[in-house]
Amino acid sequence: MNDTVTLSVNCDKLIKMALAEDITGEDVSTNAIIKTRVPGSVQLICKQKGVICGLGVFERTFKLLDAATEVTFAVVDGDEVEAGQLLGEVRGDIRVLLSGERTALNFLQRMSGIATYTRSVAQLLQGSKTKLLDTRKTTPNMRIFEKYAVRVGGGCNHRYNLSDGVLLKDNHIGAAGGIKRAVGMAREYAPFVRRIEVEVESIEMCMEAVDAGADIIMLDNMSVAEMKEAVRLIGGRALTECSGNVTRENIKNIIDTGVDFVSSGALTHSAPILDLSLKNLRPLEA
Amino acid sequence: MNDTVTLSVNCDKLIKMALAEDITGEDVSTNAIIKTRVPGSVQLICKQKGVICGLGVFERTFKLLDAATEVTFAVVDGDEVEAGQLLGEVRGDIRVLLSGERTALNFLQRMSGIATYTRSVAQLLQGSKTKLLDTRKTTPNMRIFEKYAVRVGGGCNHRYNLSDGVLLKDNHIGAAGGIKRAVGMAREYAPFVRRIEVEVESIEMCMEAVDAGADIIMLDNMSVAEMKEAVRLIGGRALTECSGNVTRENIKNIIDTGVDFVSSGALTHSAPILDLSLKNLRPLEA
Amino acid sequence: MNDTVTLSVNCDKLIKMALAEDITGEDVSTNAIIKTRVPGSVQLICKQKGVICGLGVFERTFKLLDAATEVTFAVVDGDEVEAGQLLGEVRGDIRVLLSGERTALNFLQRMSGIATYTRSVAQLLQGSKTKLLDTRKTTPNMRIFEKYAVRVGGGCNHRYNLSDGVLLKDNHIGAAGGIKRAVGMAREYAPFVRRIEVEVESIEMCMEAVDAGADIIMLDNMSVAEMKEAVRLIGGRALTECSGNVTRENIKNIIDTGVDFVSSGALTHSAPILDLSLKNLRPLEA
Amino acid sequence: MNDTVTLSVNCDKLIKMALAEDITGEDVSTNAIIKTRVPGSVQLICKQKGVICGLGVFERTFKLLDAATEVTFAVVDGDEVEAGQLLGEVRGDIRVLLSGERTALNFLQRMSGIATYTRSVAQLLQGSKTKLLDTRKTTPNMRIFEKYAVRVGGGCNHRYNLSDGVLLKDNHIGAAGGIKRAVGMAREYAPFVRRIEVEVESIEMCMEAVDAGADIIMLDNMSVAEMKEAVRLIGGRALTECSGNVTRENIKNIIDTGVDFVSSGALTHSAPILDLSLKNLRPLEA
Amino acid sequence: MNDTVTLSVNCDKLIKMALAEDITGEDVSTNAIIKTRVPGSVQLICKQKGVICGLGVFERTFKLLDAATEVTFAVVDGDEVEAGQLLGEVRGDIRVLLSGERTALNFLQRMSGIATYTRSVAQLLQGSKTKLLDTRKTTPNMRIFEKYAVRVGGGCNHRYNLSDGVLLKDNHIGAAGGIKRAVGMAREYAPFVRRIEVEVESIEMCMEAVDAGADIIMLDNMSVAEMKEAVRLIGGRALTECSGNVTRENIKNIIDTGVDFVSSGALTHSAPILDLSLKNLRPLEA
Amino acid sequence: MNDTVTLSVNCDKLIKMALAEDITGEDVSTNAIIKTRVPGSVQLICKQKGVICGLGVFERTFKLLDAATEVTFAVVDGDEVEAGQLLGEVRGDIRVLLSGERTALNFLQRMSGIATYTRSVAQLLQGSKTKLLDTRKTTPNMRIFEKYAVRVGGGCNHRYNLSDGVLLKDNHIGAAGGIKRAVGMAREYAPFVRRIEVEVESIEMCMEAVDAGADIIMLDNMSVAEMKEAVRLIGGRALTECSGNVTRENIKNIIDTGVDFVSSGALTHSAPILDLSLKNLRPLEA
Repeated sequence: MNDTVTLSVNCDKLIKMALAEDITGEDVSTNAIIKTRVPGSVQLICKQKGVICGLGVFERTFKLLDAATEVTFAVVDGDEVEAGQLLGEVRGDIRVLLSGERTALNFLQRMSGIATYTRSVAQLLQGSKTKLLDTRKTTPNMRIFEKYAVRVGGGCNHRYNLSDGVLLKDNHIGAAGGIKRAVGMAREYAPFVRRIEVEVESIEMCMEAVDAGADIIMLDNMSVAEMKEAVRLIGGRALTECSGNVTRENIKNIIDTGVDFVSSGALTHSAPILDLSLKNLRPLEA
Repeated sequence: MNDTVTLSVNCDKLIKMALAEDITGEDVSTNAIIKTRVPGSVQLICKQKGVICGLGVFERTFKLLDAATEVTFAVVDGDEVEAGQLLGEVRGDIRVLLSGERTALNFLQRMSGIATYTRSVAQLLQGSKTKLLDTRKTTPNMRIFEKYAVRVGGGCNHRYNLSDGVLLKDNHIGAAGGIKRAVGMAREYAPFVRRIEVEVESIEMCMEAVDAGADIIMLDNMSVAEMKEAVRLIGGRALTECSGNVTRENIKNIIDTGVDFVSSGALTHSAPILDLSLKNLRPLEA
Repeated sequence: MNDTVTLSVNCDKLIKMALAEDITGEDVSTNAIIKTRVPGSVQLICKQKGVICGLGVFERTFKLLDAATEVTFAVVDGDEVEAGQLLGEVRGDIRVLLSGERTALNFLQRMSGIATYTRSVAQLLQGSKTKLLDTRKTTPNMRIFEKYAVRVGGGCNHRYNLSDGVLLKDNHIGAAGGIKRAVGMAREYAPFVRRIEVEVESIEMCMEAVDAGADIIMLDNMSVAEMKEAVRLIGGRALTECSGNVTRENIKNIIDTGVDFVSSGALTHSAPILDLSLKNLRPLEA
Repeated sequence: MNDTVTLSVNCDKLIKMALAEDITGEDVSTNAIIKTRVPGSVQLICKQKGVICGLGVFERTFKLLDAATEVTFAVVDGDEVEAGQLLGEVRGDIRVLLSGERTALNFLQRMSGIATYTRSVAQLLQGSKTKLLDTRKTTPNMRIFEKYAVRVGGGCNHRYNLSDGVLLKDNHIGAAGGIKRAVGMAREYAPFVRRIEVEVESIEMCMEAVDAGADIIMLDNMSVAEMKEAVRLIGGRALTECSGNVTRENIKNIIDTGVDFVSSGALTHSAPILDLSLKNLRPLEA
Repeated sequence: MNDTVTLSVNCDKLIKMALAEDITGEDVSTNAIIKTRVPGSVQLICKQKGVICGLGVFERTFKLLDAATEVTFAVVDGDEVEAGQLLGEVRGDIRVLLSGERTALNFLQRMSGIATYTRSVAQLLQGSKTKLLDTRKTTPNMRIFEKYAVRVGGGCNHRYNLSDGVLLKDNHIGAAGGIKRAVGMAREYAPFVRRIEVEVESIEMCMEAVDAGADIIMLDNMSVAEMKEAVRLIGGRALTECSGNVTRENIKNIIDTGVDFVSSGALTHSAPILDLSLKNLRPLEA
Repeated sequence: MNDTVTLSVNCDKLIKMALAEDITGEDVSTNAIIKTRVPGSVQLICKQKGVICGLGVFERTFKLLDAATEVTFAVVDGDEVEAGQLLGEVRGDIRVLLSGERTALNFLQRMSGIATYTRSVAQLLQGSKTKLLDTRKTTPNMRIFEKYAVRVGGGCNHRYNLSDGVLLKDNHIGAAGGIKRAVGMAREYAPFVRRIEVEVESIEMCMEAVDAGADIIMLDNMSVAEMKEAVRLIGGRALTECSGNVTRENIKNIIDTGVDFVSSGALTHSAPILDLSLKNLRPLEA
């Protein structure tokens, strides 16, 4: 999200919409007081320990209001930041700094919050072979930002959406008339670059899926013992994903099962934001 | 958010975008297996105690995929719901039920999470005259949904955005050359239906703002003692807002200051979701 | 409308649409003749006495066609201009000057027409305490431009739209079961930064509204004598608005009532344009 | 504008935008009071003598808010209407009637205003062979509605925009190096279904244009005597257009010149609206 | 493309744009003649032997103009059709039938053309294990329709776009510093549901890619002998794709190499349309 | 399509959509490997003899991804190009070059394919007075590019769409109650800058149309002898268009009829692309 391609093709539209959500007419307070362009600067300050993420989006927000705005950073996405730390500076028309502040911070705080929370969970898995995955439980119209934040935080991305990954659930299997038939139909239908994942709820279903040629097995609602047994029986013929909450308490158990991946919706749907603010706005000599 | 006006004018576009975020081409898994329209139903089940919010948006999500989908509810927005409770049912083409599930739930879970958290905070204020306010610290492109959820949860809405409310901060005051001048300029410039709010950091600024005719005084970074004194000195000539975190610990103190409102960004930026799911999908006799 | 924030967030989209309305394919006449970039300039000339308004939008129209276009002005929004006066110059690719001319003028002429007409009405109120207001009777998709023009002409803006102001009419009052209940419901529901206005048709309703705590009273269809009495009885407890036509004939009477505001739909729905043109297009040495 | 094709392909988008301009969040007043669907009806009443125009757009505005709304009319576009006359009725959710009222009327009043003014001018030409034309001096993003209104009022449409008609002005002629060359280049370049019009300022230019094969000659800034002479010399080899203001005073002279068309920007840029209103809103038995 | 989900989420927008491309104002010819709704029907007739494809899009085009239009078909996507065959019928407002005809046919003809051409190529591969793939060489803004048509014609889809598949080319490999490092970086970065494909130009690169864990090897610019050798050496450890033209002449050789897939850009970029038309339009009794 | 007006008003939106079709999230392959801006260049190479067309669109595609990209060309639209010829160079961030390549080429190849095919047909008509026309049988959402390519290839454009040209077919004639009435109604209704074309299927209809004042006669499904007779009888009172396929075999006959125009749908719906590629990407010294 620091490349102009992703920003221009997919982020700009969402950033502009967010600005238009916050400014349906004009910034009345600012325009009432400041009638002409006044050059100024403002500092981006961290108010809470965490992982910074979304600097490119923060910068783009101001640039979309006024291409002449200059943004510099003392950190990069993924850096650990401390309360009180100066993270960067925005220079430009003071009206732009005031009017863009909230939208820019709303993106940055949320993305940093997700990166911070993800890293805290990913660290629980360190030293094991099990990797942390996100889900599609993202905030509507924020997925591109949130999935990026998960990666910056040290997680891996699961499929992006319904169109770029195949996951066969009980309803698909039922409609197809069994796992084997479902996997076959998916293999026939989906672009051949897709891996095919099957959600299973028992050892028996699991082995049926492996035999059907599934690339990934999602172990759903299984006990730790069952998962361990499933992983053993699969024996590397497919990747395994444990779908469930990772907590400090159960983490040791999940790692012990030997699953390749554990996914967590909470990374994106319940991470609190990281507190950040713009401070010390001041006019600049022309 | 249960009136067709708000939905059709302002929500549909965002819901369609969220669907397009999750389905950039087609739902590959579903379309690989189910080749024709199959009528079916699925149940909306609560998995966690909380306040339900966003049923209109949940329904609209399915209707936008297929106008023939029927959605019925056993609860209304604002109801307290329990884990295991059946909340409603969706009937229609099984492909629509499968493809719309995640997007519909992503809206409903987030809105319910905010309503649930807001109610828990609002209850701390019960019995006092102090009311709970939200802020503009909302998730980008989710404000219309999140501000509604705050209201359903028992909070009040602060200004919607930069265009429909006037809030003069230190930078505005500095640029205007003093509080009195700033309030005068705002009064002259802004639509006359706006109330004018001034953010103050001391008793002195506070009284200057009241004398200048400010309608609302935001007490920022003041001690409890200072706030109490400010409220006393204002003596009803302006509404007062305490901007800060409400916690079980400090709530008694805030109420004691006698402020009219206390605002909290956490209502929208850090509430965890409420866990909900679609279960028991089954085909219906034609 | 000379700040990049308002232009980029809310005006650009409408200007681009207006250009696309006038150029659904290409400018056939121009492209048939002029095959490459030819630098040139053209002058903006006033053809009729009035108040100029919309220069920022005029400039932006050409910049959106080609960012390299340069626009300079000899006047600013709000200036009185005379027939024959040189108002500014546009320099750039002659094809851009020719293709953008009509759209840029259509905005500028209309906005200047409204500013001109508004000023002529506002002058009738000079010396009194009564201020002139616009209404929501604006041309569809032109409100942001037209409300700005009213302000430039010396009028004040009423609420921008249905979402940023509360105005309770007879139907709302009827549905609520009385003025008191209606005001209470609005106070409870609307963002607390809103002032609440009630439309009344009699002295009795008027006093009921004031007692209910309405912030603004709209006196509708009342005789001058009734309005005068209403203003006296209100005694400053609420602002007053007279909704009706201001004409040279009735203006003295309206002022005499002592109302704070008089609103006029004609400012935006029936002001004739101000005649302006682009003249003296000529090529420039490279 | 009573065919679903034009409405769905080109008008709906503009109507939706106009609704979103008036409702950026929700209709606060209405939603504060009326919490559920209440069936009701409201009458469309004429308040001023004129020509009604835009009924299809008026109806569509309500249907876009809620497809279940029913609209019936006692008149059709082009009918002369009188003050006090009942023109139609809208039935549906009262919230829809209240929230859609202003936008629907803003379209209808403006279109009717143009039709009314156009008819008054067209009548001055009755009995002659000269027809009345509009111009591209329309309100931005309103052209499709305004050009239709001109036709309903009895005028004819000039080219719709820069892409669907060829009009060679002095700058084109200068750049081409003469009228003959300009007409030749346009004939070569433009789609062959276009007629080619040339703007001339003298008899000499006029005859040069006719000889070059121009289909239409626009006589610009010519005296009545010159125009009469021009028409005589052209002798039917091209159509003729007089570009200028038609007034009750000069109309006889213009007719006498024998030009085929006279165009007037005022039809669209300076017609006052026709006053209309929605009255007698009342609930209906379910 | 016969499910409402794909149509409503991803096709409707493109179909509406295509209609707006063909009707920038109104259908002048039709509206000049037919002033009110006239029910009628028209037949869809095949004029050339081929494979029909896109019936859902054809139907949707008319429905988007007027939801009341009814479309029935005698065939389904993928059926072989003959010159003269009656394929279906459209019933509705004759103005809708006339105005929608060209756009509906432009989609249907193009999609059927691709399906027809694809089937002719796919048949050359019948009996072998080699499958036919499309590429990203599609017509801009037509990919969703064209990739579907390939599938209907019997081809398989390669990745949909740059975001849902990984293909490492020489520039990626060079930038990474070798195949092994490139594959590793991609595996680390990309969503884990992606298969990773590497483009190789020699046996040596090929084996390096296989050893690096590539899932798919694209054999580029290799001789038949080299490809055969590559497939033998890979020995099933990766899928193989031959990127190149399939012709009646070289088909036997490609099959003999034993590659799993052969991709062809011509399927989408150079297939001629299938000739179809709407005939026998006639009014219906009301 | 080398003027900024056409590009900015009408092409940019379509180019951006095409980019978003190919990059729904990010370019995973490129972003996995290349983490920062790396300046580089790549060459545009011709792989097949033909007529180049669309260079402005090709350039714009890269500029829309990153305005800092520089594109230079060794040829201009309309030039004949040879296999192996270097046509131009693109310089900029290597990530932009890689991510934009396919979309830029998809436009350029298609437009060049149409120009190439059109020129080959236009050459068959050289030396005669008969000109080559395109039709509305264009690829959905590609018309602006395809009609331009026809012109670059030496063809002429027929009407752009249903709104900017009048073509009366049998259904219009039937509904109007005869050719004379249909032409009269169209003349009355359509903007007066339109020429009116009538499609006829017999000599009798042809003469009726001419007598009715039709500007253009489309001779449909007539034998060569009939067309020759029709042209003779029309005697220059109207332009004539032969609607049908032009092939090397029948071309002499069509020319012999003396028709002014012959139209061909194949120009846009069935021209194969011209093969082009980007080669020799290499990093540049900073």
